[in-house]
Amino acid sequence: MPDVKFSVDQSRAFSEQDVLGHNRWHPDVPAAVTVRPGEDFRVECREWFDGTIHNDDSADDVRDADLSIVHQLSGPIAVEGAQPGDLLAVDILDLGPVPQQVGPVAGQGWGYTGIFARDNGGGFLTDHFPDAYKAVWDFHGLTATSRHLPGVSFTGIAHPGLMGTAPSAELLARWNQREGDLIATNPSAVPPLALPPLPENALLGSLTGAEFDRVAGEAARTAPPRENGGNQDIKNLSRGSRVFYPVFVPGGKLSLGDLHFSQGDGEITFCGAIEMGGYIDLRVEVIKNGMDTFGVEAPVFIPGRVEPRYTEFLTFAGLSVTESGEQRYLDSSLAYRRACLHAIDYLTKFGYTPEQAYLILGAAPIEGRLSGVVDIPNACATLYIPTAIFDFDPRPSAGPPRAVDRGQCAVSSR
Amino acid sequence: MPDVKFSVDQSRAFSEQDVLGHNRWHPDVPAAVTVRPGEDFRVECREWFDGTIHNDDSADDVRDADLSIVHQLSGPIAVEGAQPGDLLAVDILDLGPVPQQVGPVAGQGWGYTGIFARDNGGGFLTDHFPDAYKAVWDFHGLTATSRHLPGVSFTGIAHPGLMGTAPSAELLARWNQREGDLIATNPSAVPPLALPPLPENALLGSLTGAEFDRVAGEAARTAPPRENGGNQDIKNLSRGSRVFYPVFVPGGKLSLGDLHFSQGDGEITFCGAIEMGGYIDLRVEVIKNGMDTFGVEAPVFIPGRVEPRYTEFLTFAGLSVTESGEQRYLDSSLAYRRACLHAIDYLTKFGYTPEQAYLILGAAPIEGRLSGVVDIPNACATLYIPTAIFDFDPRPSAGPPRAVDRGQCAVSSR
Amino acid sequence: MPDVKFSVDQSRAFSEQDVLGHNRWHPDVPAAVTVRPGEDFRVECREWFDGTIHNDDSADDVRDADLSIVHQLSGPIAVEGAQPGDLLAVDILDLGPVPQQVGPVAGQGWGYTGIFARDNGGGFLTDHFPDAYKAVWDFHGLTATSRHLPGVSFTGIAHPGLMGTAPSAELLARWNQREGDLIATNPSAVPPLALPPLPENALLGSLTGAEFDRVAGEAARTAPPRENGGNQDIKNLSRGSRVFYPVFVPGGKLSLGDLHFSQGDGEITFCGAIEMGGYIDLRVEVIKNGMDTFGVEAPVFIPGRVEPRYTEFLTFAGLSVTESGEQRYLDSSLAYRRACLHAIDYLTKFGYTPEQAYLILGAAPIEGRLSGVVDIPNACATLYIPTAIFDFDPRPSAGPPRAVDRGQCAVSSR
Amino acid sequence: MPDVKFSVDQSRAFSEQDVLGHNRWHPDVPAAVTVRPGEDFRVECREWFDGTIHNDDSADDVRDADLSIVHQLSGPIAVEGAQPGDLLAVDILDLGPVPQQVGPVAGQGWGYTGIFARDNGGGFLTDHFPDAYKAVWDFHGLTATSRHLPGVSFTGIAHPGLMGTAPSAELLARWNQREGDLIATNPSAVPPLALPPLPENALLGSLTGAEFDRVAGEAARTAPPRENGGNQDIKNLSRGSRVFYPVFVPGGKLSLGDLHFSQGDGEITFCGAIEMGGYIDLRVEVIKNGMDTFGVEAPVFIPGRVEPRYTEFLTFAGLSVTESGEQRYLDSSLAYRRACLHAIDYLTKFGYTPEQAYLILGAAPIEGRLSGVVDIPNACATLYIPTAIFDFDPRPSAGPPRAVDRGQCAVSSR
Repeated sequence: MPDVKFSVDQSRAFSEQDVLGHNRWHPDVPAAVTVRPGEDFRVECREWFDGTIHNDDSADDVRDADLSIVHQLSGPIAVEGAQPGDLLAVDILDLGPVPQQVGPVAGQGWGYTGIFARDNGGGFLTDHFPDAYKAVWDFHGLTATSRHLPGVSFTGIAHPGLMGTAPSAELLARWNQREGDLIATNPSAVPPLALPPLPENALLGSLTGAEFDRVAGEAARTAPPRENGGNQDIKNLSRGSRVFYPVFVPGGKLSLGDLHFSQGDGEITFCGAIEMGGYIDLRVEVIKNGMDTFGVEAPVFIPGRVEPRYTEFLTFAGLSVTESGEQRYLDSSLAYRRACLHAIDYLTKFGYTPEQAYLILGAAPIEGRLSGVVDIPNACATLYIPTAIFDFDPRPSAGPPRAVDRGQCAVSSR
Repeated sequence: MPDVKFSVDQSRAFSEQDVLGHNRWHPDVPAAVTVRPGEDFRVECREWFDGTIHNDDSADDVRDADLSIVHQLSGPIAVEGAQPGDLLAVDILDLGPVPQQVGPVAGQGWGYTGIFARDNGGGFLTDHFPDAYKAVWDFHGLTATSRHLPGVSFTGIAHPGLMGTAPSAELLARWNQREGDLIATNPSAVPPLALPPLPENALLGSLTGAEFDRVAGEAARTAPPRENGGNQDIKNLSRGSRVFYPVFVPGGKLSLGDLHFSQGDGEITFCGAIEMGGYIDLRVEVIKNGMDTFGVEAPVFIPGRVEPRYTEFLTFAGLSVTESGEQRYLDSSLAYRRACLHAIDYLTKFGYTPEQAYLILGAAPIEGRLSGVVDIPNACATLYIPTAIFDFDPRPSAGPPRAVDRGQCAVSSR
Repeated sequence: MPDVKFSVDQSRAFSEQDVLGHNRWHPDVPAAVTVRPGEDFRVECREWFDGTIHNDDSADDVRDADLSIVHQLSGPIAVEGAQPGDLLAVDILDLGPVPQQVGPVAGQGWGYTGIFARDNGGGFLTDHFPDAYKAVWDFHGLTATSRHLPGVSFTGIAHPGLMGTAPSAELLARWNQREGDLIATNPSAVPPLALPPLPENALLGSLTGAEFDRVAGEAARTAPPRENGGNQDIKNLSRGSRVFYPVFVPGGKLSLGDLHFSQGDGEITFCGAIEMGGYIDLRVEVIKNGMDTFGVEAPVFIPGRVEPRYTEFLTFAGLSVTESGEQRYLDSSLAYRRACLHAIDYLTKFGYTPEQAYLILGAAPIEGRLSGVVDIPNACATLYIPTAIFDFDPRPSAGPPRAVDRGQCAVSSR
Repeated sequence: MPDVKFSVDQSRAFSEQDVLGHNRWHPDVPAAVTVRPGEDFRVECREWFDGTIHNDDSADDVRDADLSIVHQLSGPIAVEGAQPGDLLAVDILDLGPVPQQVGPVAGQGWGYTGIFARDNGGGFLTDHFPDAYKAVWDFHGLTATSRHLPGVSFTGIAHPGLMGTAPSAELLARWNQREGDLIATNPSAVPPLALPPLPENALLGSLTGAEFDRVAGEAARTAPPRENGGNQDIKNLSRGSRVFYPVFVPGGKLSLGDLHFSQGDGEITFCGAIEMGGYIDLRVEVIKNGMDTFGVEAPVFIPGRVEPRYTEFLTFAGLSVTESGEQRYLDSSLAYRRACLHAIDYLTKFGYTPEQAYLILGAAPIEGRLSGVVDIPNACATLYIPTAIFDFDPRPSAGPPRAVDRGQCAVSSR
């Protein structure tokens, strides 16, 4: 086990730790720690909702979750010698849930997947699922099962949902400008089009006073992925991956969090992964002037060798035609939405409720592919479900599907 | 070798065959042949441009290609006993290029990938690549190499770009309505938003006279994938796959064509696959009332077991921010475009021209994934390039990339 | 399709072809054809018993098969410029069964697996299976099924059972010496310990007269693999593999045959693969002085990328203790025999006869591994059966196995 | 993290723990702990030499290691309700090296591979490597590197080298009889043919006094695998595997140890794996009467889904001909030995010493296959080395191999 460079006490809130992390992006959040290139080190992480989601059978906590606090990021971690224009080559050596048995926090043997309500975050299919739902997963080594989703069991593809370097002031300004412009096109959209800076509940490491106020007013929210990486939610950044991040500020200031025990491509329920607190072991090397040398201005990565090995899939295709039959032009997001909806419809034939099916697609190691993007006017997206995650044969056959009562996930009391 | 149920003479144009295929979708194109459920059979196919693209070093043929003739479909193939509401379970037993040595047609030991010009088809990156380009590939068993793309060699993932059942009259009317509505929003777009029915160069099997004229005026173009499958361009419909198609008309009327020796997800250059004529061996079974029983209203499939096995990838991520810096809302097509552009920029550091890099991404077995679709406002798409397709190490490293002169692909004379 | 450099008329016996192949190893068998390095070419092959095994339900043909005629080798193929001490790098571009429909010979849509009788060849488990048995397989593209083995279907791992270069006179003499020495230890063993030169039914290409008689008296039988490759029966020499063979004589004189549609590790029934006639496409390059440069004195290879992808296996372990309980010292062959016997016992619980189970293990893409070779006194060998080859769940479970009547394979009339 | 059911203090010798394990097999070693079927639990393990091998650059500790103390087994673990004739279905949920930082013991960030001297254990190639050697490996998450083996880095395939159930008195008697019979054929062999019961240094859990003496005199050594599993050294019993063990005594009495960070098939240097102390998380279920129901009399298993995914291999084949040219009859152990020797010769061309190459083959996730076992008189075995474990291209090519000075492993002072 390598040295713990950023430690978290899982019995305390993220804002009450000895060394504070952050939940906004800004170049002036001070580095919490410094590491040397080539050194193995460990970072501990809180789960993204800081312990406010419980291991129970009600989704009220998801319904009422406070989005202003996310994401709980461990860092910034400065890397000796890193300068703007370099690349950080970050090896994800290992990661996993909280190893200590200190209490009932997600990561300690369990995690959760949430469907967020339309008026509190929403999700990919929020028009079809406007309410809050939840599934609690139990961890058995690398395998996850859920009392809320009987008949499903799979090997997780663990990864940090969020990892990235600090933006430069110039890059941050660009983010704020372009996202502000988008918001301005429809400021009252629900869910919103984007999230502007929000001082409320901002956590900025060791910053205090006027400097805190200035930075809190400028700092970018952590929801979207951006040129610095950030909340990419790429499920394949799993054990053994090497990720190359651009360096925008001296030291690079790497931060990370939002650990996932598993996730399907797209993290479609918004909180679609299996959320957990835990640890991640890293090693960082610096490629001097790598951005220019390799023409890299956004993260590039090499996946690891231990992704769960499934080889039989049931695949659903979607087109860029809306549910009401309107033709859209090469819209891959819509095509993927339709593929997801087809898969959900299909799974209900085997006894799952639509909410259960949606939760499965968010959390299991499903793959979402951009299969066709040029055949006007229809984009074609495909969703691959590993058949072995079910304890029944989910393939179409001459006989009828084995529809049994599979209960229900956690629901909210409205 | 199973019985040839639909034969093609590769030395003659598709419109001059003894048994005629078709290049438009319509329920009233008569079945060319009937097969029994459970029977293995072979279908022969012309390459999608009917032999008008040549094995040479000029892209003028791509520049001048006549899009009104595509796609050359073998079929329709009626399946005994299939009725509307059923599912056809189609096993792709095998497929490959033209086995006989009859002439210089694509498929006879070679194939091609084209970048179509902006004013003649366009493509995914047509704003960046407005002209026509071409690469010719040589087949060595399952491996492809190209004199236009030195340093690249890969195992192809062969598949039919297009396979589907005939639409019902009602479904066809819906297609024409929704696509016409889209065209009406900008009728003069270049490339166009969608393609309306086009009697010119229509080929409708054995139809003639007034019936031909009626059907030609109504029949849908074959470019987009739709609820019947069609031009899905899903690279994973390779050897050993089983595809479930909805049946909309008696007999199902399965048709197929546009065989690809290989393709990357998205077929991004529009003619991005390695195009070839060839053969495909199939077996079809009927699942009675399968559409309703399994809730299937669009194709579902199970991939085969012999996809080329690559395990080391270099992956590029893209966001839904335009090249000029404008923020778009969760636009996965844009995110994938940016990932493709990042990859192209990267490959130029190793000596490829941008056109060469674009052609490689279209043809090699790359994967395109919808990695994030909910983290407002940025969609995140990822593009996975197998590193082993290059005869050099393409990974970022401490040293500089090995940039050597890699020549150029076929270009057009403008 | 590349040029056919060695052609076979599948309607005629191997000894009646226009260009004769051979069935013995000797440096003086003249090259039948010459190829250039880097050239793609095709070789056609008879199945190893030259068409004497039939697509029927009796194993009498296996019982009475004449082992003096095997193997029917296509070649020798001289490679321009190859000299003793070089390595031939042989790319297996593609291979498959006989594509033409010319008659009832194995390879034309079907193949067979045989259990040879103890007094005519024997096999790995001949003490347990002293009689002749047979299963006929039908090919559906890359998939094999057998009416003699209901419930089984798999993607084949096609390969040449036998490929190799000609020995030098010195090497041949060494083979004859060492194998003769072994035979001398028990000349009357049944099955024999090894096979001495046998002029009867020898086929030596274009040799005739006294030279034929001399060579026939010296030439080595083709049964065992040796330093030149030969009958290695390595199932992984499948499509896309590159094999490096030592060159012992000018031109290398590559020969090959014994094509298999599939095989399990060990080819345990002796004729354990699915035997077929067919074609194989090759390309050869010469690595000058490669034997010394790389220290290679026996074949080395790189497997291809399209081996059938199975990921769930049921694995049986065996020890080097005989069936009667006698302890042997680190005997891996015995350990594998016990693993095979355990697997056969297991499969009978699901309704197969022992002969059927044995035939399945010989033909399906099972893996046999040397798991432990140092833990005195027990070697440990393991046999991996892909669970997906069965249309039932073959794993141990709380409930009883689904034992149904699965009929019987072809048997002999004694 | 599940409850720790068997705890080990890594700062103390195995014989000085609060709860004692054992190092001999006997039905009367009392259960140290009892678990319920379906319960997740953790077991902690000492490395197999109890901390006597050091992280240094001398192999004297390997040369002098005391083989009478092995293996240090955690257990026996009784399973509620298990009765003779049942099967234990043991899920390996997770395993890894010692997580705490308590000292310099193998498993705490490092492990070792040893070549044992001929007169102290020996190994697969002991005739070629009669002296002691050692390599120390550093763990970086799932990756191992060694200062003694520069240029090598791989993802480990972690597993327990030894796991098994207690034998019945009848089975134990059979073991002692058959192994004693073997020893009697050559009692003075070096290394010995087998290991008889040895009271010296026996550890038998809580047994004391006369009962200890009786059991110590009868108990079987743990070196070989047997019908109860035991020291199978199957590298594929990795994370996610399910192993079915026969139950011979009430409670089953499961024991385990000899954790390996990685290993090649065969564990050819005897101490060929990367040895480590650590933890393993398990769950056990009972299949009543499973031995008879499924015909299982030796362990059966289903491998997990996260074995390191390598797809490009360099493969060496060996025959059953001795190094001095003597022909042996279908001897797969010899064939594998020759394949290993070929691979070692080959690797020396790239600058490794033979000892270094031997250590690499023992520890990396190489595969050893029984490729041919029936082609008299030559068995054919193959050894697959993943090419990606090297930081150079190890494939034969037209140019010479990149032979650089790669130093040396740890050697002994004689």
